[in-house]
Amino acid sequence: MPSISDKGNSMPQSPIRKLVPFAEDAKKRGVKVFHLNIGQPDIKTPQVALDAVKNNNIEVLSYARSEGSETYRNKLSEYYDKNGISVTANDIIATTGGSEALLFTIGSITDPGDEIIIPEPFYANYNGFSIASGVKVVPVISSIDDNFALPKIEDFEKLITPKTKAILICNPGNPTGYLYSKEEIQKLKEIVLKHDLFLIADEVYREFAYDGAEHHSILKEDGLDKNAIVIDSVSKRYSMCGARIGCIVSRNQEFVQTAIKFAQARLSPPTYALIASEAALDTPQSYFDDVIEEYVERRNTLISELEKIEGVKVAKPKGAFYCIAELPVENSEDFAQWILESFNHNNETVMVAPAGGFYSTKGEGKNQVRIAYVLNKEDLKRCVAILKAALEAYNK
Amino acid sequence: MPSISDKGNSMPQSPIRKLVPFAEDAKKRGVKVFHLNIGQPDIKTPQVALDAVKNNNIEVLSYARSEGSETYRNKLSEYYDKNGISVTANDIIATTGGSEALLFTIGSITDPGDEIIIPEPFYANYNGFSIASGVKVVPVISSIDDNFALPKIEDFEKLITPKTKAILICNPGNPTGYLYSKEEIQKLKEIVLKHDLFLIADEVYREFAYDGAEHHSILKEDGLDKNAIVIDSVSKRYSMCGARIGCIVSRNQEFVQTAIKFAQARLSPPTYALIASEAALDTPQSYFDDVIEEYVERRNTLISELEKIEGVKVAKPKGAFYCIAELPVENSEDFAQWILESFNHNNETVMVAPAGGFYSTKGEGKNQVRIAYVLNKEDLKRCVAILKAALEAYNK
Ligand SMILES: Cc1ncc(COP(=O)(O)O)c(C=O)c1O
Ligand SMILES: Cc1ncc(COP(=O)(O)O)c(C=O)c1O
Repeated sequence: MPSISDKGNSMPQSPIRKLVPFAEDAKKRGVKVFHLNIGQPDIKTPQVALDAVKNNNIEVLSYARSEGSETYRNKLSEYYDKNGISVTANDIIATTGGSEALLFTIGSITDPGDEIIIPEPFYANYNGFSIASGVKVVPVISSIDDNFALPKIEDFEKLITPKTKAILICNPGNPTGYLYSKEEIQKLKEIVLKHDLFLIADEVYREFAYDGAEHHSILKEDGLDKNAIVIDSVSKRYSMCGARIGCIVSRNQEFVQTAIKFAQARLSPPTYALIASEAALDTPQSYFDDVIEEYVERRNTLISELEKIEGVKVAKPKGAFYCIAELPVENSEDFAQWILESFNHNNETVMVAPAGGFYSTKGEGKNQVRIAYVLNKEDLKRCVAILKAALEAYNK
Repeated sequence: MPSISDKGNSMPQSPIRKLVPFAEDAKKRGVKVFHLNIGQPDIKTPQVALDAVKNNNIEVLSYARSEGSETYRNKLSEYYDKNGISVTANDIIATTGGSEALLFTIGSITDPGDEIIIPEPFYANYNGFSIASGVKVVPVISSIDDNFALPKIEDFEKLITPKTKAILICNPGNPTGYLYSKEEIQKLKEIVLKHDLFLIADEVYREFAYDGAEHHSILKEDGLDKNAIVIDSVSKRYSMCGARIGCIVSRNQEFVQTAIKFAQARLSPPTYALIASEAALDTPQSYFDDVIEEYVERRNTLISELEKIEGVKVAKPKGAFYCIAELPVENSEDFAQWILESFNHNNETVMVAPAGGFYSTKGEGKNQVRIAYVLNKEDLKRCVAILKAALEAYNK
């Protein structure tokens, strides 16, 4: 019998996947399950994007240009310009989600055995894309006690080897909600210039910066043109995760031309989704104002309710729509399963993501969970009440 | 300055890419360019698929399930059943095009340095996906004089090493149009069983089998459950290349569960495209009858016209919508560029794909081109007239 590859065997399972059958069983028992475990917002997609697809007059649903049409990339460059990032259509490649942008980026700059340094906890799929490319993730630990701020320069430098090709950050962070300051970005700039590394910034949550904080893109830094690669996506910005459109943005043309070869091999991003994404660029500012207001309120509700539970520690997120909470349990994976399998509060329960999957250092995050505040305030309040009751029952 | 990876540097350019600027220049000079170089059919997408998207009532464009919904995979399994292939929803993973199905498959069964044997000429992007995965393509030559039939078993066996993980065929073939017989499939079965290899069949052109020939899927063979992996796509079947939906089909559950991990990492196939693809399964048989009739006529026109040109040799395709033609020129790449750059016939010219890009043995196919019969008969006749005049002028 032919065998699966080592690579295939080491591809990680989604940290949530194991819990799915327990959630399904709970539903079968008539228990309502609130999903705090996923990055799928409940926010309405902008009407202008939905309408563009409904009003399309396609007769032959053809391949789009591998890197996305010039029109779309031009409009995107205007969007970046408005965000203080000056790039041209030639600096942009449309991809099938930010996911594919990550895959093409890693493929373009690494060979098997190479290393990428990533502050942990990090978006779990960075692991998957790295393993798929034969690349080793080297984690640098950030701490909940520090709100998951950027680790010290020395901590990075200790990990740099001749195999190190890039530092990858997520800003604002999934799962931490941390928003890097201008000063932190400049520290990273210093390291990558000194060691000739790429700096990859996953900025798919760019819009979600709270409390008046400004998002500082790595593309706003001078002198980083050869090093800076931004991963972006329409998924969260316009609540259109199912579209599957993202992009790579970089002023390093050698890199862009390389990534385009990966894009050509897979022929085309999805055509309907490109129509929606191009139209979405006309979304009025009021949409974002409303969405940000909504998320800030959700975050405030969630954090203040969580802080009321004894033994729970939370890092207050400044961006994105996740937070990491430390729970008074030994093993958050067991607990997450238990609340689905053996617990309910007035016939309701919650599904959270055990944080272990966001760390690559074994044992880290063992008593933490990631909570996505993708539900409305009332539901969030109920969720925290359920968690509180569950912790009490669990610890008896 | 940080550097591009060896992998990135060795990713191939699309064989057509170099010609694109010459085609654009020709158009600027007012010359009409007929595109025989691409696998983008001009056939209308089934109305039922287009309508499903126009009539969607999505409010939040959410991620789809990583492997595609159960509903979709169930309906797909019925489609396979109708085609004499008995599989269940669990044997199917929906992917972002056949392209992604190839990528996940290669990732699941190979590690860097492994080898895949492919009869050449082959679909050029097999190279790209292999290089992206660090895998070596080992070509086994098939010949135009033989209509590109399956090479002899011995030819395969000579190439098998401990690193060989799979044999990959395209049936019917792009670029050859060759349709493998049941006997040829059984020969392949013998080899892969004897040497414990996977047999990957890219069957994205399954519907396009002509002259009453039946398509013989590898999934129709008994005893191949652990070995057989089918790559499929809606792109050509329903002329919806821009949807970006394909699938992996295999009864080897260990393989399927591995490939699902790759699917989870990239989260979701495109949601609008899934709506179109699910609806497309209700396309009436008359649609296919008309399409096949059209392609048969196109093929007959193209081949008989080409055969009239002195010095041109063609392999008569039994499937798909491509043919390889040997031209009385030394270098088909130079010729393909010349007809765009320096030639026109009544202000019209054609773009063809130099066949060198479909071979991985250096120098093979140097005087061949691939012609896609994706235009109507009248246009095809004009194209051949242009080619004929061009060959006369070129060889003076
Ligand atoms: C940090 C981060 N990057 C990238 C992605 C990938 O998103 P997509 O492929 O939908 O653009 C996600 C999705 O949750 C994410 O959280
Ligand atoms: C033989 C073959 N396989 C796979 C593909 C990939 O097609 P898609 O990704 O559109 O499904 C193509 C496209 O031309 C093809 O010709």
